[in-house]
Amino acid sequence: MTSHTEQSAVTVLGLGPMGRALAGAFLDAGVRTTVWNRTPGKEQDLVERGAVSARSPEEAVGASSATVVCVVNYDAVDAIVRRDVVTDALHGRTLVNLTADTPDRARDTAGWAAGHGIAYLDGAIMTPTTTIGTPAGVFLHSGPERLYREHRPMLDALGGTHTHLGEDVGRAAAYDIALLDIFWTAMAGYAHALAVARAEGVTARELAPFAQGIGTILPPLFDQAAEDVDNGRFSDDINPITSAVSSMAHIVHLSEAHGIDAGVMRAAEGLARRAIGRGHGTDGFLRITDILNPL
Amino acid sequence: MTSHTEQSAVTVLGLGPMGRALAGAFLDAGVRTTVWNRTPGKEQDLVERGAVSARSPEEAVGASSATVVCVVNYDAVDAIVRRDVVTDALHGRTLVNLTADTPDRARDTAGWAAGHGIAYLDGAIMTPTTTIGTPAGVFLHSGPERLYREHRPMLDALGGTHTHLGEDVGRAAAYDIALLDIFWTAMAGYAHALAVARAEGVTARELAPFAQGIGTILPPLFDQAAEDVDNGRFSDDINPITSAVSSMAHIVHLSEAHGIDAGVMRAAEGLARRAIGRGHGTDGFLRITDILNPL
Repeated sequence: MTSHTEQSAVTVLGLGPMGRALAGAFLDAGVRTTVWNRTPGKEQDLVERGAVSARSPEEAVGASSATVVCVVNYDAVDAIVRRDVVTDALHGRTLVNLTADTPDRARDTAGWAAGHGIAYLDGAIMTPTTTIGTPAGVFLHSGPERLYREHRPMLDALGGTHTHLGEDVGRAAAYDIALLDIFWTAMAGYAHALAVARAEGVTARELAPFAQGIGTILPPLFDQAAEDVDNGRFSDDINPITSAVSSMAHIVHLSEAHGIDAGVMRAAEGLARRAIGRGHGTDGFLRITDILNPL
Repeated sequence: MTSHTEQSAVTVLGLGPMGRALAGAFLDAGVRTTVWNRTPGKEQDLVERGAVSARSPEEAVGASSATVVCVVNYDAVDAIVRRDVVTDALHGRTLVNLTADTPDRARDTAGWAAGHGIAYLDGAIMTPTTTIGTPAGVFLHSGPERLYREHRPMLDALGGTHTHLGEDVGRAAAYDIALLDIFWTAMAGYAHALAVARAEGVTARELAPFAQGIGTILPPLFDQAAEDVDNGRFSDDINPITSAVSSMAHIVHLSEAHGIDAGVMRAAEGLARRAIGRGHGTDGFLRITDILNPL
């Protein structure tokens, strides 16, 4: 155990799957790593790999100039760091919060940190635990750029690509939420497609190669649509919203004929029908972005 | 104009964007092509490229041993072919229906065709009009395999990959609906993500590179999940449903804080919460397939 502070030292608070992956990557990179978890027992193999196990969060944050926290949400972050002994121990040090939550919580945490002399960076991890320490990891960061640059060598120990999105500390969380929105909506669509296929006697294994084909055409479409959305241009002679709605109605019909809940598609179809109702039937489907958010 | 029938001749009914692409590919492949559209005027450039323009659907189908129909849905197919003069003209010939609709409609159309001495294949086109006649086209077919084999040379004139999914004539439509389910749900997720990002001051162009990254991780996940779903195994220590629900709640919260409808995500979250309520909280997200369709 040590309370000695050095630049190439980091503390990791939270040893869930992601926290453990982060601590492991720091250890593999030769960074002196202090770990702490609310419930004990998760640190043992990390200690065997060279980590220092702190007996309390205040001891943990005192051991390093920078602390990385990655727990279930910001309520859990607050329960750890917003206690006087821990807040005091963080004074003059840096807190890098890689926990997922909403931008408003990130901004609130930054305000609390500023009020207590704690340097604060907020971040989001966009890839699974297995990518940590590998080139496949994707990390988003926001907050003071100077602070980000200062800690970039420490972050690089985690491998992958790191992007600083701006000084607005909520920006990483905003990207995180938007990207998770795409991910979980698509996964819900896949689960629903598999249920419909199964009801039609088609196995997931049979559908999967074609599902992968659909997955492959999405990224270029995402890219193409982005400029249209920013520019408010949605004309699409080839694949208008009216044609999307026809497909959606078929999906709802077949689902419900098999007794399968079609709530997700019904909600999406409703947005498309609202776009048509507002006179945008010949526009491309991404017009619904404006229906959702008429800024 | 000719009523003469030959093996290497095809008729295309319907000259919407997809019908026009199909007729164009047949012409490029040197297949004698007769075309007809409900409203005239769409055939002119095809005629300039060598197509024969029929004055009626009965004249059109009489000109070739095989007719391809691709219109907006099966109601539109029925309006064209289920009239005595057309049905009589189709007798002893093959109808290949590449119109998108539901499996029950495909089966119903096959029944009608069988009752009138019309050989019938059903199919679905999974890729945009621009892929027709190129290697990128993806065509799914179902119905009698012998008939499919017989007409495979004609179909190959359309380019791309052709897959015969089975004798059940509804199978191509079932795959089509399941794949469109994935596609349109994912597009709805993307539109929603762009609306949330915009409310947070993030442009579509800024989000797009990361959205493409999310799109890229989906196909391998689709593949991995397929076996689990077929086998009813959903354990996932790393990314359990409880963790998905936490993300989903953040998405709903942030959307609605910005006044953005979160109906699609609320519906998906509801399914995940039902899975948790049934004791599957530690399972992977695809467990919701069983919640949707408890077979």
